[in-house]
Amino acid sequence: MREPLVGFKELLNVDVAREKLLSKAKLKPSPQTVKVSKAFGRVACRDIIAPYDYPPFNRAAVDGYAVKYEDTLSASENNPVPLRIVGEVEAGFGSEPPVLGDGEAVVVYTGAPLPKGSDAVVPFENAIREGNLVYVMKALPKYKNISYKGEDFRKGEIIVSKGTVLRPWHIAALAQAGLKEINVCRKFKVAVINTGNELTESVPVTSGKIPNSTGPLITAYVRELGLEPLYKGIVPDNKEQIKMTVKEVLGEADIVVITGGTSVGKRDLVPEAIKELPESELIFHGVNLRPGRTAGALIVNGKPVLMLSGLPVACLVGLDNFLKPLIKNALGLKLPPTPVVRAKLARRLANVVGFRSYFRVVVYWDNGELLVEPLRLTGSGILSTLLKGNGIIEVKEDLEGFEVGDLVDVRLISEPYPEKPSFLTW
Amino acid sequence: MREPLVGFKELLNVDVAREKLLSKAKLKPSPQTVKVSKAFGRVACRDIIAPYDYPPFNRAAVDGYAVKYEDTLSASENNPVPLRIVGEVEAGFGSEPPVLGDGEAVVVYTGAPLPKGSDAVVPFENAIREGNLVYVMKALPKYKNISYKGEDFRKGEIIVSKGTVLRPWHIAALAQAGLKEINVCRKFKVAVINTGNELTESVPVTSGKIPNSTGPLITAYVRELGLEPLYKGIVPDNKEQIKMTVKEVLGEADIVVITGGTSVGKRDLVPEAIKELPESELIFHGVNLRPGRTAGALIVNGKPVLMLSGLPVACLVGLDNFLKPLIKNALGLKLPPTPVVRAKLARRLANVVGFRSYFRVVVYWDNGELLVEPLRLTGSGILSTLLKGNGIIEVKEDLEGFEVGDLVDVRLISEPYPEKPSFLTW
Repeated sequence: MREPLVGFKELLNVDVAREKLLSKAKLKPSPQTVKVSKAFGRVACRDIIAPYDYPPFNRAAVDGYAVKYEDTLSASENNPVPLRIVGEVEAGFGSEPPVLGDGEAVVVYTGAPLPKGSDAVVPFENAIREGNLVYVMKALPKYKNISYKGEDFRKGEIIVSKGTVLRPWHIAALAQAGLKEINVCRKFKVAVINTGNELTESVPVTSGKIPNSTGPLITAYVRELGLEPLYKGIVPDNKEQIKMTVKEVLGEADIVVITGGTSVGKRDLVPEAIKELPESELIFHGVNLRPGRTAGALIVNGKPVLMLSGLPVACLVGLDNFLKPLIKNALGLKLPPTPVVRAKLARRLANVVGFRSYFRVVVYWDNGELLVEPLRLTGSGILSTLLKGNGIIEVKEDLEGFEVGDLVDVRLISEPYPEKPSFLTW
Repeated sequence: MREPLVGFKELLNVDVAREKLLSKAKLKPSPQTVKVSKAFGRVACRDIIAPYDYPPFNRAAVDGYAVKYEDTLSASENNPVPLRIVGEVEAGFGSEPPVLGDGEAVVVYTGAPLPKGSDAVVPFENAIREGNLVYVMKALPKYKNISYKGEDFRKGEIIVSKGTVLRPWHIAALAQAGLKEINVCRKFKVAVINTGNELTESVPVTSGKIPNSTGPLITAYVRELGLEPLYKGIVPDNKEQIKMTVKEVLGEADIVVITGGTSVGKRDLVPEAIKELPESELIFHGVNLRPGRTAGALIVNGKPVLMLSGLPVACLVGLDNFLKPLIKNALGLKLPPTPVVRAKLARRLANVVGFRSYFRVVVYWDNGELLVEPLRLTGSGILSTLLKGNGIIEVKEDLEGFEVGDLVDVRLISEPYPEKPSFLTW
């Protein structure tokens, strides 16, 4: 007899699999109030609205003289217009600024509230002062060198939209808007379970064992997504223990990621174990990812459970294809853009048609041109390919690959090498 | 008389200024031991070396039969080669795997240590089992379906190089290498001081005051760089208070960033104040940045003190041009690549020759083409330009700008708009 279950009967298209997962997963963001000073890196849970105009009043945009622009219209170097200085206003001026009459000027410093009646500011360098008079030497258009009330943000305007990951300029804008606290999304808790009798946390490893690298990978990935990992450690290849562990973590986690034992071999107990839990529904198992075909997903007790390969690179491809979209979808997450470069293939890239393949590649400069080569050794467990390699090329399932000289889009992991690295000489 | 000190006598080229700063600043990384499980986002303080080979032994890369490849050479579908099954090895197998003789096979599961004498693995699907015999139906090359000892990392090889910001795959590789603790760089402490009588932390703001947005901006920026901010709050425009505050923070901080009062007006007391501190050396003051020309730097007690504009956008340009390179240089920091796109200018971009200018722009899709337009309102205080705008164009000082239709490189802040946004219609 042929060994049973040595391959998947059918590999689902990854886009179809993802859509099924997203439509079934009822992951809802819940708001949490945090101080703006602690909000860096968090995700806005709803649109954040300006409570006041900013700037809150018309301000001088330069150091100079606040004037009525009409008074300056005939001014030139040869025909300076004299105005009478009637006051001085600094930034942070506490009381009401003076009111300006025709033919008058007020000394103002950058950021100072503008005196009533003035509608332009003559910079110091465009005027000459003599005692209480200032000679304006250049005509000004209306509103010149003024920063208006509300020009940056008007009351009621959206400052930061829902799903935005808060970066320094967002934090600055929230502070500027006079906000002290905002609603961010509570961090989803992602439980991480690694199955496999071969795994160990002990160092140095004993005969036949290997360190658990996929657990730390997922944990860091979850942190990079701004979520909270719940690392549950290693579970042996035992159906009852797997069931019990998943059931238990579902009490506190919003999402479960479980690795290993997701293929269809004798020791691949994870899918069976989880399917036996109450309120469990299989969404898919087996997708056309390469690496990563053993990926699967279920909904248990209304919560998504992702089954991913225990091999780190295949696992990472699974996280990119299922965990990240799940979070993006639930939070309306606007992630910072991915750095992509277009480079010329220096070697053939052959795809197995039918698979959505992820090639780990090396991008380097060569005579002012960006070249790219796939790495030779690319097993789904070979982590060094993500460290020596500095890019990823995704090839869609309908393509046989690319030829030498083809221009391809490469997702950059780190900067291109300044020249062809020596480890590529094969 | 003309007002004195209304402009800088000379604006130093920003590259020259930065080089002066980097050569004078003696910022040295110091190592700190952390658990690998807590090392995500930290910076490797030295090259991290593999202490063992990985994989630690030859492993099966698929589920199948470990064989001597020579035994399979005549195998085909029509002429299957029978081999005698003498054992089974699972991943995580604790004891010594069996030794394989000629004509023998051992059942192995992915990740299992390879039996001595075997040099290839026949996948289950390429063989038929009958009792204790397995019929191999396909010839295998030597080493087929084997993952070698040391193929991922050899003992002594660099896993992660100095200056790397640790991302998920680095953490996974460190765990895989059997490392529990590593040396990361201690986080530099960056003191943040904001000067200005107009600033307030109180909300709602009182007449003439504005909220301090630059403090939160720098604090978040420092966090994004992986450093530790020491927020010192607002100091009024008072020379003695500025001196005292800077002197005090120099006791605990590695770097000081102070904003406001860095121009050359009447209230611009920061440079004078800091210059009067003992062991103080001015490196530069006034650069050809636009916005951000008032930037300056000193070394006080051997520590870099950056003086930046109090206006948030100008401040950000200063941070990008001086703080980030300072850290990059000190730690040998390898930052993740910046996302850059090439887009076609839909409006003219006029530079003031002599200035290194940073234009906040909007990038959007238009009939499959990426277009870019500068924002109209771009004062150095206008934060909304960094929120509505989704890109930055840097224009070198020798350029007058770019014309409509020119292709320009844009540093993306967030993804291109799917179409021309309505706020651009002006």
